[in-house]
Amino acid sequence: MTTTTTTTTTPANATITIVGAGMMGSALAFPARENGHTVRLTGTPLDRDIIDTCRKTNRHPKFAKDFPPGVEFFQIDELENAMRDATLLICGVSSFGVDWFADHMLPRIPENLPVLSVTKGLIEDGAGGLISYPEHWQRRAAPRRLRLNAVGGPCTSYELVARDQTVVTFCGDDPHTLRWMKQLMQRPYYHIALSTDIMGVESSVALKNAYAIGVTLTLGLNEKINGPGAAPHYNSQAAAFGQSVLEMQKLLRLLAGNDNELALGIGDLYVTVFGGRNRLLGTLLGRGLPLDAALRELSGITLESNVIIARMVKTFRAWAAKGIIDLREFPLMARLGEILLDGKPAEIPWEDFVSHAPPENKP
Amino acid sequence: MTTTTTTTTTPANATITIVGAGMMGSALAFPARENGHTVRLTGTPLDRDIIDTCRKTNRHPKFAKDFPPGVEFFQIDELENAMRDATLLICGVSSFGVDWFADHMLPRIPENLPVLSVTKGLIEDGAGGLISYPEHWQRRAAPRRLRLNAVGGPCTSYELVARDQTVVTFCGDDPHTLRWMKQLMQRPYYHIALSTDIMGVESSVALKNAYAIGVTLTLGLNEKINGPGAAPHYNSQAAAFGQSVLEMQKLLRLLAGNDNELALGIGDLYVTVFGGRNRLLGTLLGRGLPLDAALRELSGITLESNVIIARMVKTFRAWAAKGIIDLREFPLMARLGEILLDGKPAEIPWEDFVSHAPPENKP
Repeated sequence: MTTTTTTTTTPANATITIVGAGMMGSALAFPARENGHTVRLTGTPLDRDIIDTCRKTNRHPKFAKDFPPGVEFFQIDELENAMRDATLLICGVSSFGVDWFADHMLPRIPENLPVLSVTKGLIEDGAGGLISYPEHWQRRAAPRRLRLNAVGGPCTSYELVARDQTVVTFCGDDPHTLRWMKQLMQRPYYHIALSTDIMGVESSVALKNAYAIGVTLTLGLNEKINGPGAAPHYNSQAAAFGQSVLEMQKLLRLLAGNDNELALGIGDLYVTVFGGRNRLLGTLLGRGLPLDAALRELSGITLESNVIIARMVKTFRAWAAKGIIDLREFPLMARLGEILLDGKPAEIPWEDFVSHAPPENKP
Repeated sequence: MTTTTTTTTTPANATITIVGAGMMGSALAFPARENGHTVRLTGTPLDRDIIDTCRKTNRHPKFAKDFPPGVEFFQIDELENAMRDATLLICGVSSFGVDWFADHMLPRIPENLPVLSVTKGLIEDGAGGLISYPEHWQRRAAPRRLRLNAVGGPCTSYELVARDQTVVTFCGDDPHTLRWMKQLMQRPYYHIALSTDIMGVESSVALKNAYAIGVTLTLGLNEKINGPGAAPHYNSQAAAFGQSVLEMQKLLRLLAGNDNELALGIGDLYVTVFGGRNRLLGTLLGRGLPLDAALRELSGITLESNVIIARMVKTFRAWAAKGIIDLREFPLMARLGEILLDGKPAEIPWEDFVSHAPPENKP
């Protein structure tokens, strides 16, 4: 990829347009604006009220802290102004906005404008495999060649806003663009690793969504045994966490061809286990609620995990049917599929963990 | 190794002698006795009061639950009776009892009596390397050839006693003995994986002791910023956890020649981060207490981690001096050494994490 003039913009005078005013996209306005850039937070058609509120209060309705002074807010109808002379576009949509971003945004993104996406997940490639969103969008944009990058790693938006120490990874195929984006965005509290392994980073991040449900099932199972509000127990959490590491390592090798980004995914799993929505769903299922009842209790909360897990499990089942993988090597993922896709009870196949782990040293 | 008559004992009639009445050794009396075995819990010379209490109350002073009926208790002077016709000896001493076990117990252990040790750590081999305790004891016992095995994995004793779902790994060099011990000890809540990679399991378990301090430093650092009793924050915990995974994977490859037992160590790291003593030390250091003040505050609590970390860091520094490793690839371990051995302030070198991770994909 040739270096364009945009990537020679010095860190102090970039214009960063964020599209999607969800929590993560909006949180990135903080390091960006603190670094002195022009920052234009732009809502999708679903974000009109959020942008109205931001304009009135200079605060995102879900944050406990004002934006840094000078962040500009745009409605989707003002996209042309928001994108004028932009040097970086941040895509802040969720998995549910992937098609909208493809249809509405991709045609409007110049080939030389770098894009950094916070969207997490994998998607079917139409040929029995899974691909990252940057790859998916590139296919949708072809024959034009866009500069699509993504961010992964353990980062809750409200802790980033609070300036907590945070370590993430920017991934993309052009090292020069990655280094430039890091210069733009890094802060004393926001540390950015770089990786050219997009599929490794994105697979790791997608897998942790599934396994976070697996680990937090044990919270509900504990309450079922010891009563609601019982003190947390850790042996079973840790056993499920360890099994998640084992399965994620093997699945990463399948999906990305290596496990170099395992640590990123495990750090992200850790933060997700203690995050809100996945933890709540896992706990409710573990308590014994059927899936539909658990989802009803979560109504109003956007839950990407469920969609991401379904895609992965369906793909892995298809691979198993073809003999590409043996699902018995992935007892936790297999059980998550049975719970979330087949409505089976939330039980954990503990003994399956030890009979298959780790085959290399198994007597 | 030839199969001896002891290993053909059927699970229902084994005689299991536990030496060392600490929490973990004593906790193993529960699954052992529930399986109908004769169980003889024997104190070391330091355990006299514990054994007295157990005899009077049928409860370990640190447990909230009685032993199953029929567990027998022995003082160290009664060792000969405790070991009569034993079919399995469980070593329940801590790292601080390793020499005592070598001097006092090894000469009394018949070559055909399998030993299962709960002692966690690595020890210098006298030639610049680190070895497991089973290997250390075997060298001390030579030319006699003992049947030394060990248990690793995420297991807090009080949760095992509470019959929480728990997954551990028994490791040893004889598959037949491993399977036999599993039959003796497994319960519907106690799941046992088997591994012939003793150094992999023991390295994983030792490393997590170090990294648990590394992760829990962030708890104290959070309190320093947000005030004592502040709600826990997870971005920084997760970043340190992810870095721990990265460094443990590389160190496992160095110590054991492979990373097959990484998942076990990460599960164990998870439970240790939420356990008592390591978490407390890490938090105190993170708050800014110098090491000696933190250790004073922990007085009365046995802290093996500190000893294990010191051994490892000294070895890794010697390796670095010889050019075997580059400590810049292990910034968290290196910093732990500076904090615990050199008395430096407890700060986390966040930016070093991203500049070295992961080199494979680094642009």
